[in-house]
Amino acid sequence: MENQKERTTIVLFSGELDKAIAAFIIANGAAAYDHEVTIFFTFWGLNTLRKDEAVNVKKGFLEKAFGWMMPRGPGKLGLSKMNFAGMGPQMIKHVMKKHNALSLPQLIELAQEQGVKLVACTMTMDLLGLQEEELIDDIEYAGVAAYLGDASQAKVNLFI
Amino acid sequence: MENQKERTTIVLFSGELDKAIAAFIIANGAAAYDHEVTIFFTFWGLNTLRKDEAVNVKKGFLEKAFGWMMPRGPGKLGLSKMNFAGMGPQMIKHVMKKHNALSLPQLIELAQEQGVKLVACTMTMDLLGLQEEELIDDIEYAGVAAYLGDASQAKVNLFI
Amino acid sequence: MENQKERTTIVLFSGELDKAIAAFIIANGAAAYDHEVTIFFTFWGLNTLRKDEAVNVKKGFLEKAFGWMMPRGPGKLGLSKMNFAGMGPQMIKHVMKKHNALSLPQLIELAQEQGVKLVACTMTMDLLGLQEEELIDDIEYAGVAAYLGDASQAKVNLFI
Repeated sequence: MENQKERTTIVLFSGELDKAIAAFIIANGAAAYDHEVTIFFTFWGLNTLRKDEAVNVKKGFLEKAFGWMMPRGPGKLGLSKMNFAGMGPQMIKHVMKKHNALSLPQLIELAQEQGVKLVACTMTMDLLGLQEEELIDDIEYAGVAAYLGDASQAKVNLFI
Repeated sequence: MENQKERTTIVLFSGELDKAIAAFIIANGAAAYDHEVTIFFTFWGLNTLRKDEAVNVKKGFLEKAFGWMMPRGPGKLGLSKMNFAGMGPQMIKHVMKKHNALSLPQLIELAQEQGVKLVACTMTMDLLGLQEEELIDDIEYAGVAAYLGDASQAKVNLFI
Repeated sequence: MENQKERTTIVLFSGELDKAIAAFIIANGAAAYDHEVTIFFTFWGLNTLRKDEAVNVKKGFLEKAFGWMMPRGPGKLGLSKMNFAGMGPQMIKHVMKKHNALSLPQLIELAQEQGVKLVACTMTMDLLGLQEEELIDDIEYAGVAAYLGDASQAKVNLFI
């Protein structure tokens, strides 16, 4: 055990801008301290990994309905509080820019550069009818067993 | 330490269908990997353990009010996102059935078969006026001290 | 490692009364069992630490707007469920008083007496324009690095 790197895992279940930002700030911080970091995207959290353009894939009716209703990528996420029909996210993005804080797409890019493992939950993809072509590149695909494998070697395990 | 089983604990605070499903999928996964698993149901999470029929117990006015307003069992829980006045949960249940995923009542049953320890928070029961007769069978009753006892021996501790 | 105290950390991200109460009940429980406990207040969770009176500090327009819109201190927080335009929090406060449970301000005071480390996230303070004068006394100020330092020595790490 002595020489192994410390590990941190985050389950990102929520599909809200503020929670996704918090998840990536913690993940990037841990990676900067040389932890091996995994973010496991499940349920609404998967929307964070969607490409912002529509992708032409064959789907059934319900899968299409979920696809339309759910936010397409980090630019479309709402807030968990004070969303005000989309004005809240604009305010948050504005103050983050003003303070030179990284935006969510930049935080995602930084995480990938730092080797943070981004894992899309395959069970959720099945349920919501999301396909690999619709998600950003350079991510992994796995189920709850893989998450538990990483988490049981980690000290910091968060559900966000 | 060497020969002890690994432990996983989950505090289920939220009373939403999607979060309860996530909690039970992780719990059942961990139990399948031979972890000792505890789910501690507190605040709104306790509604997951309610029987779906009304139970005739003596209560004061406020306790009755909470009893009426809160969802009675796993079949009545809403979603944390896209609830759409109950249409969202129906869609989720429909796609889960279509993909042969276990429903929440089935996930609860599986957890009990696998020996996952389901613990109702006695402090919350007092506050919300819930009585043992109103909750499903074969669960335990304890407070935050018992939770902390389990959590401090576990590596994976989540708050959902 | 043998003689060190056990550690527990909580990230309080949410700005809701029920979640703040849960965080402080767990924190006070862990402190009673002689854990070293840190609560790291970030995003909406920071509102828990605000003084309940307005504090006269110089601010820009957006910072003032956030200051007005966000709840000022533990007495003003809403519920994550059944808020009913403020009636929910009154009901919860009423039943807690009736059962002699500690109120949130009392839980905060107890935490400080027990030596629970309350840390305000400086990055959030910058973003939302909150200043030290607006927060309660005897707390610490730090960033995500300090949180990760504590969390990687702890077994129980929760995100609430």
